[in-house]
Amino acid sequence: MKVGFVGLGLMGSAMASNLLKAGHEVTVWNRAAGPAEILRSQGARVASTPEGAATGDVLLSALANDQAVREVILGGGLLEVMGRGMVHANHATISVELVKQLAAAHAERGIDYIAAPMFGRPEVAAAGKLNILTAGPPAAIERVRPLFEAMSSRIWPLGVAPECASVAKIAGNFMIFAAVEAIAEAAALTLAHGVKPADFIDLMTSTLFAAPIYQSYGRQIAEQRYEGGGILMSYKDVGLALAAGGDANLPLPLASLIRDSLLEAIAAGDEKLNVSALAKVAARRAHLPEGN
Amino acid sequence: MKVGFVGLGLMGSAMASNLLKAGHEVTVWNRAAGPAEILRSQGARVASTPEGAATGDVLLSALANDQAVREVILGGGLLEVMGRGMVHANHATISVELVKQLAAAHAERGIDYIAAPMFGRPEVAAAGKLNILTAGPPAAIERVRPLFEAMSSRIWPLGVAPECASVAKIAGNFMIFAAVEAIAEAAALTLAHGVKPADFIDLMTSTLFAAPIYQSYGRQIAEQRYEGGGILMSYKDVGLALAAGGDANLPLPLASLIRDSLLEAIAAGDEKLNVSALAKVAARRAHLPEGN
Amino acid sequence: MKVGFVGLGLMGSAMASNLLKAGHEVTVWNRAAGPAEILRSQGARVASTPEGAATGDVLLSALANDQAVREVILGGGLLEVMGRGMVHANHATISVELVKQLAAAHAERGIDYIAAPMFGRPEVAAAGKLNILTAGPPAAIERVRPLFEAMSSRIWPLGVAPECASVAKIAGNFMIFAAVEAIAEAAALTLAHGVKPADFIDLMTSTLFAAPIYQSYGRQIAEQRYEGGGILMSYKDVGLALAAGGDANLPLPLASLIRDSLLEAIAAGDEKLNVSALAKVAARRAHLPEGN
Amino acid sequence: MKVGFVGLGLMGSAMASNLLKAGHEVTVWNRAAGPAEILRSQGARVASTPEGAATGDVLLSALANDQAVREVILGGGLLEVMGRGMVHANHATISVELVKQLAAAHAERGIDYIAAPMFGRPEVAAAGKLNILTAGPPAAIERVRPLFEAMSSRIWPLGVAPECASVAKIAGNFMIFAAVEAIAEAAALTLAHGVKPADFIDLMTSTLFAAPIYQSYGRQIAEQRYEGGGILMSYKDVGLALAAGGDANLPLPLASLIRDSLLEAIAAGDEKLNVSALAKVAARRAHLPEGN
Repeated sequence: MKVGFVGLGLMGSAMASNLLKAGHEVTVWNRAAGPAEILRSQGARVASTPEGAATGDVLLSALANDQAVREVILGGGLLEVMGRGMVHANHATISVELVKQLAAAHAERGIDYIAAPMFGRPEVAAAGKLNILTAGPPAAIERVRPLFEAMSSRIWPLGVAPECASVAKIAGNFMIFAAVEAIAEAAALTLAHGVKPADFIDLMTSTLFAAPIYQSYGRQIAEQRYEGGGILMSYKDVGLALAAGGDANLPLPLASLIRDSLLEAIAAGDEKLNVSALAKVAARRAHLPEGN
Repeated sequence: MKVGFVGLGLMGSAMASNLLKAGHEVTVWNRAAGPAEILRSQGARVASTPEGAATGDVLLSALANDQAVREVILGGGLLEVMGRGMVHANHATISVELVKQLAAAHAERGIDYIAAPMFGRPEVAAAGKLNILTAGPPAAIERVRPLFEAMSSRIWPLGVAPECASVAKIAGNFMIFAAVEAIAEAAALTLAHGVKPADFIDLMTSTLFAAPIYQSYGRQIAEQRYEGGGILMSYKDVGLALAAGGDANLPLPLASLIRDSLLEAIAAGDEKLNVSALAKVAARRAHLPEGN
Repeated sequence: MKVGFVGLGLMGSAMASNLLKAGHEVTVWNRAAGPAEILRSQGARVASTPEGAATGDVLLSALANDQAVREVILGGGLLEVMGRGMVHANHATISVELVKQLAAAHAERGIDYIAAPMFGRPEVAAAGKLNILTAGPPAAIERVRPLFEAMSSRIWPLGVAPECASVAKIAGNFMIFAAVEAIAEAAALTLAHGVKPADFIDLMTSTLFAAPIYQSYGRQIAEQRYEGGGILMSYKDVGLALAAGGDANLPLPLASLIRDSLLEAIAAGDEKLNVSALAKVAARRAHLPEGN
Repeated sequence: MKVGFVGLGLMGSAMASNLLKAGHEVTVWNRAAGPAEILRSQGARVASTPEGAATGDVLLSALANDQAVREVILGGGLLEVMGRGMVHANHATISVELVKQLAAAHAERGIDYIAAPMFGRPEVAAAGKLNILTAGPPAAIERVRPLFEAMSSRIWPLGVAPECASVAKIAGNFMIFAAVEAIAEAAALTLAHGVKPADFIDLMTSTLFAAPIYQSYGRQIAEQRYEGGGILMSYKDVGLALAAGGDANLPLPLASLIRDSLLEAIAAGDEKLNVSALAKVAARRAHLPEGN
């Protein structure tokens, strides 16, 4: 298939690479040149503008956030150059409000719009084993299925309205943060009464909570290393959940709590850490040792 | 080994039964006669008082809560009849405050006290596959290890001070409730934007949260059946977490949130449901359909 | 003084009227014509565009919210027609982010920008007894002092940076909502144990809380009438507090709690009531009678 | 009237002193001897046991908390020596649960029980200007009215069931803490954006919140002096609110929030300060300067 791909961060690069391996004809664009050049060496064409990438049957985009999507997809002439009947699958995690705006703008021009956010870290993307959440016109999803299959281990249909996939991704991220907050408070509680965090976390993540998220974040909390960045993105993401809740008059008290705790972590100077730094917040509240 | 066993609820009966199967000589006592008679038919001796069960090398107890433990263990003459050097392993989920009081009362009389709360439902207990958390004098734990092994798939040592095991059990229960609250809010958020709860929950519990707790409660929430009772016990249990936090000057905002939501569920008349009724609370706050 | 006044809601109309009474030469503009015509009958000139009102020494604006301010002040050519050295005092309650943006846009063009939000209901404005919060260049504030004095009983200087006055207004509104939430929960607690809400509220607002806010909202809660609209504006206002907190990495857990409760009130269909409908939310959580 | 008075803390001593000044015949008892001797010099008889003070027509008690009330009123023989038809008015702030237990125990013996907690600090008690909340049998309240009038500026009847007065006192204390939390968060928010706390607090407590509680705690927060102790009692008191809520299946999310913040203050080592130290917690969460 002739595919355009805009947005070549760690995720986008890995995904485009898998499309090339699967034999698709891919034209890529990225704001910074480096990642595009690597893909050129793997067989991609490189466009000098987003519009230049939007000339095939399908456009995939994997931009960073609402702002980047607004600028690249809505801000320039991209929608104008795309032909009627073309499909745009947007892999970004963005606000429900923006998804609705995008869906309307595409519909106006006869372009099929699919929301296709993903779960999976860059190494999972590289292995072509993402979980891709999808929502949009069923026929359009069928058309791009071969592309999705080249990048994922499973495709999860969530509805016809594109915001269905976006809100599921937002809610899933929220569940991750909630799990981290729960580990953080539970580990502080046990530590306060003399239990080694590693012992407690090993117990829980080997039994009731033997799930990847708990094991990965649990290990970081047990070892008091919270490196890797991302807490600012988590703060943004919990804001997406609260905004989506607000749009539907839905209170999310646990999301509010997490937002407040993330702000506290950021205020403490931990903006370079990841969301597991919530464990430092929980410990500090009781003047327990909190790692570095 | 000559073992006494007091407290024959669903858990205790299954555990005592496994001790008999493993060839131990077990004397049981229970407030109501029925369960003791069933165990008699499996080879147990039946004592007419708790003191009558405390004549062997080891006493195991699996009582319901703080009140039952206070009455049976501290309220009568049980500690007086137990000989120096005897071991008492207490399987109940009780407050940190009471554990400390029990440990002191046993130490005064030269009795080894082990806290040994468990994770596992009655059917797991029946299969002898509990996870037993232990804390107490290491030599005492070694002595009762054969008993624990007859009842469990794994023994988790958590410290020398008995409250270490108790607080780990309390913190683990709190993590379960936190997971349910997270599913509840996330499912309400996605439903509010048009996603079928079953689709969202299937996605999450097949991927990032492929853990028993999420799968079991997730299914109940997706299917809007919250039967099985237990929410009053969950309310009691989150109170144990808050009390243990208070004892250590540790705020647990997520536990506070869960306590408030459980109260709301109970006030709504759902005291016959289980903790998954938190999903009804989350939905009702946004006037979403909430099941029965 | 030659004054322009844009935004003639209940507040703006009363304020402009007082400026006329004090002998100032006032040119008014409003999106809808009605209020301007009333002021014309009191001696005002009526401009047909915001720019037409910005021809004197000073421009006062009393627009509804961020969106109206963006459209009227930043969206058209208003700043272009205003001369260097002119003063713009903005009475709207708007976000800290927008205040900063406005201050920068005015500074670029040599216009003095003053934030001047107010406390006081329309009848207070009509009586010329507002409390006006001010922040901006001190010399500019001196220049407009006669105008502020014609509209207020007191002027409160809060700093040189305009956002100082805005954030104080936002924080003050938050304190109002917090007081209402406190009355709501306290009244529910006493009612649940058999006390008549009116008895409890009379006690508190006659003694420790003998302050206007408590007396006014307390009476509404005691009498279970929550009419008068405004809850949607309260929801917007608590959002301003949370956003201002977020800008400064400051968690505001009580503001988060209020936001969630306001959403719950709105979801329950009470968007026509005022913030005292928080009392219905508190009562409903415990299945207490909640009025209409 | 012949009155017994047990519990001579700062409050009790001032109250008993006013009874003497009003010409009543007062027999006092206190655990520590000092305060009783001072009252002896004012004309009181001093009993060596609580029972010795319970020989008149009326017993007043002003004990510190649940524990003291349990020990002195229920733990000894006090109720046994009191005659049928005697009245006991209990001025302590105690749990709803204990009030009900006391009311039942008194009723069993034909003693009239009145709950009579108070608002007012020791200097207000000394001036005989307390606000006394009352609940109990109306005839009994009439009998002791002359005593209450000697100690108070106003008597507030709240119901026939004694817990009505207790829960009102508990709810009133909760409202005080809520006001402090609101000032704390609002002052942190304005400070974070450059406003001097004293300027903001002066504004609010001179206008919308011109009430004693706001002025007194506001001044302490503005001046960053939080001395005077009492935070541990505030923690106890918010616990009474949460327990009373729990008894009625009533969630009190704001009380939960305050409990958590008080724990955080105590964990930070501020157990010698008063509840206004919540302002330090709010500031610390954003890494703002927090005073000493």
